[in-house]
Amino acid sequence: MGDMITLDKVYHAVDVLKDVARRTDLIDAPNLGTDAQLYLKTENLQLTGSFKLRGAYYKISQLTDEQKKAGIIACSAGNHAQGVALAAAEMDISCVICMPDGAPISKVEATKKLGADVVDVVLVPGTYDDAHAHALALQKESGATFIHPFNDDAVIEGQSTIGLEILEQLADLDAIVVPVGGGGLIAGIAYVMKHLKPDVKIYGVQAEKASCMFESLACGEVVTLDTAATFADGIAVKTPGAKTLEMTQEYVDEIVTVSEDQIAAAILALVEKEKLIAEGAGAASVAAVMFDKLPIKGKKVVCIVSGGNIDVNILSRVITRGLVTGGRNATLQIALEDKPGQLVGVSSIISKCGGNVVNVRYSGSDPNIAITSCYLTIGLETRDFEQIEEIKEALTSAGFHLVSARNGT
Amino acid sequence: MGDMITLDKVYHAVDVLKDVARRTDLIDAPNLGTDAQLYLKTENLQLTGSFKLRGAYYKISQLTDEQKKAGIIACSAGNHAQGVALAAAEMDISCVICMPDGAPISKVEATKKLGADVVDVVLVPGTYDDAHAHALALQKESGATFIHPFNDDAVIEGQSTIGLEILEQLADLDAIVVPVGGGGLIAGIAYVMKHLKPDVKIYGVQAEKASCMFESLACGEVVTLDTAATFADGIAVKTPGAKTLEMTQEYVDEIVTVSEDQIAAAILALVEKEKLIAEGAGAASVAAVMFDKLPIKGKKVVCIVSGGNIDVNILSRVITRGLVTGGRNATLQIALEDKPGQLVGVSSIISKCGGNVVNVRYSGSDPNIAITSCYLTIGLETRDFEQIEEIKEALTSAGFHLVSARNGT
Repeated sequence: MGDMITLDKVYHAVDVLKDVARRTDLIDAPNLGTDAQLYLKTENLQLTGSFKLRGAYYKISQLTDEQKKAGIIACSAGNHAQGVALAAAEMDISCVICMPDGAPISKVEATKKLGADVVDVVLVPGTYDDAHAHALALQKESGATFIHPFNDDAVIEGQSTIGLEILEQLADLDAIVVPVGGGGLIAGIAYVMKHLKPDVKIYGVQAEKASCMFESLACGEVVTLDTAATFADGIAVKTPGAKTLEMTQEYVDEIVTVSEDQIAAAILALVEKEKLIAEGAGAASVAAVMFDKLPIKGKKVVCIVSGGNIDVNILSRVITRGLVTGGRNATLQIALEDKPGQLVGVSSIISKCGGNVVNVRYSGSDPNIAITSCYLTIGLETRDFEQIEEIKEALTSAGFHLVSARNGT
Repeated sequence: MGDMITLDKVYHAVDVLKDVARRTDLIDAPNLGTDAQLYLKTENLQLTGSFKLRGAYYKISQLTDEQKKAGIIACSAGNHAQGVALAAAEMDISCVICMPDGAPISKVEATKKLGADVVDVVLVPGTYDDAHAHALALQKESGATFIHPFNDDAVIEGQSTIGLEILEQLADLDAIVVPVGGGGLIAGIAYVMKHLKPDVKIYGVQAEKASCMFESLACGEVVTLDTAATFADGIAVKTPGAKTLEMTQEYVDEIVTVSEDQIAAAILALVEKEKLIAEGAGAASVAAVMFDKLPIKGKKVVCIVSGGNIDVNILSRVITRGLVTGGRNATLQIALEDKPGQLVGVSSIISKCGGNVVNVRYSGSDPNIAITSCYLTIGLETRDFEQIEEIKEALTSAGFHLVSARNGT
């Protein structure tokens, strides 16, 4: 398969996208506590909440008038759907988007809203593969053009405009770290960099649980995974593209993987330190840097934060878990004599140690304790594990009987 | 008191700040569902997490060599502290920062980290007023220069650089909406706009529970509130500045107030729709637009998102409450016969309706139900209130006995 991407077409994509996509900010991120000089390319702040708009819009803009008239069809669990929907709406092209019925509610709703009158969202029972099969069947019937999410020259050219922007924003960079699902984003960025500034290292990051490109590189051919069960749904891909694999083999320096917990920690760090919402896919690049997966000590490194479309319910769980694993809250159970003033005693000790009480429960019905006693269960917000230990020690020193302590509230 | 601010000095501040402060992005925000064409000036993405760096740095840079040598002192519960700390560290000036001991843990830690070796953070027991009194006492002893958070010409000139940036970023704007605590930010922005583009309306927003500028305008003189008990700690100010009040009287078109719940809703909307973390103060401007407090229908409006330094514990609570009040989760209690297959029946109905089960509890010990029965309590993630109703109806139609339903999990 020939490489038909050219720099000419990448520059053309820049021109086509200039009034459509945001030229997202490159922000330095000194607070993430890494050994690299870190910068974030904030595609989470792109219109539609991810970089996918670039490739989808450029691809659709390059269709012939006849193709545009026949309409387009796409399949996606989220970000590509939103990019296609906005592009179709802007160019007034009739469009069908198949989404698996388990796609995050927020992404389905956003796709419908962006697509306005021209887009028909079809929820297909089952997985992404089922939705994909349904889309291909519909395409055969209707003759509409199928807009592939990654394995397409024009789509890759659209994504590659990010590489040009980074070169303008930080000319002397050393490396770029890119989240990888099917490989369209990294193929585009790597193509541009290796042609214009070949010394810049290009690293890809996949979720351990959806490492299709990592495995395919190892095997030297396209590998299909049995499952892609990561909560980073933007990169939960079972099969990379043939074209994107070939480009990755040619232009990418290394692909690494990160765990679910590492991705969650990166999301929380971006929230706390950089005031940015990233989805799991978008935070994977930052996770690889935070957890030392790459040889970038002291280097000027750009992490692509590729998207921010995280369901708030999931975000809430990520934050909650992050607070627990970071010693930011705790629950203490104390056996008290059931007499006045005990709660005052406990709470003043906690307050002196700087802990913040968020809930309290009294219970006297446990048959294992004396009838004149009761259990006091207190939920706390804390600074770190050290402070939790301080509070426990202070309570014990004051004569209170600490029955149990656990992280979380 | 004369107005000593000049445009010359504002332009000078731009020059001084050009390698220090970020020129934050102006992002259009079409997804917040308002009647205005909304843009966000993202000072939450400023270094130190808020605009305060601008005023603090410019003020400190204008001290004489002798003053710099004698050191500086400041008092703040958070954002001003971080701005002063970074400025002092950059200019290598010895610095004491008094913070109330109840200041958010994350802000105290960030101030210490930014200040590196030159900053001494003193935690003063009590409120902001106690910390302020302590800082003034220390200042008398040491002769250090007190860096006021808002009532100071150079500080106001520093903040006013935001106004110039907005003019460059969106020349044809109609209005700017500014969060107001002590009034330094709005005084600076209003000064610039009313001199360079007087048609632009300047609106201020305060928390209902800390409306010192609103009250002072009404009374025509500086009013001190008894309390400033808003969770938007960045604008929890009891007394506005004399200078900032005077400038507000002269240059600001209107000040409005927003409730705590409205601020929380704006934080959640910024997270979901714009992928940005704002603190309460930073989201107040957006809250005023979302809840129709201002005459801006169809206008091009810039909201200043002034800061993003929200404690993650508080953010977690805001998100949790937002999910509950938005119908995004629910708990159903169902009385079941204690026989196999019941849970399958219930969960397949919920799944068909698109609900997502997040927790399940079985309980057979309630003396109020038959000994052959049990209670099933199910926590759900849902799209909206409508979907919750659909699920309830589907369960009831299938013959299940719904004992209770409540929002939240």
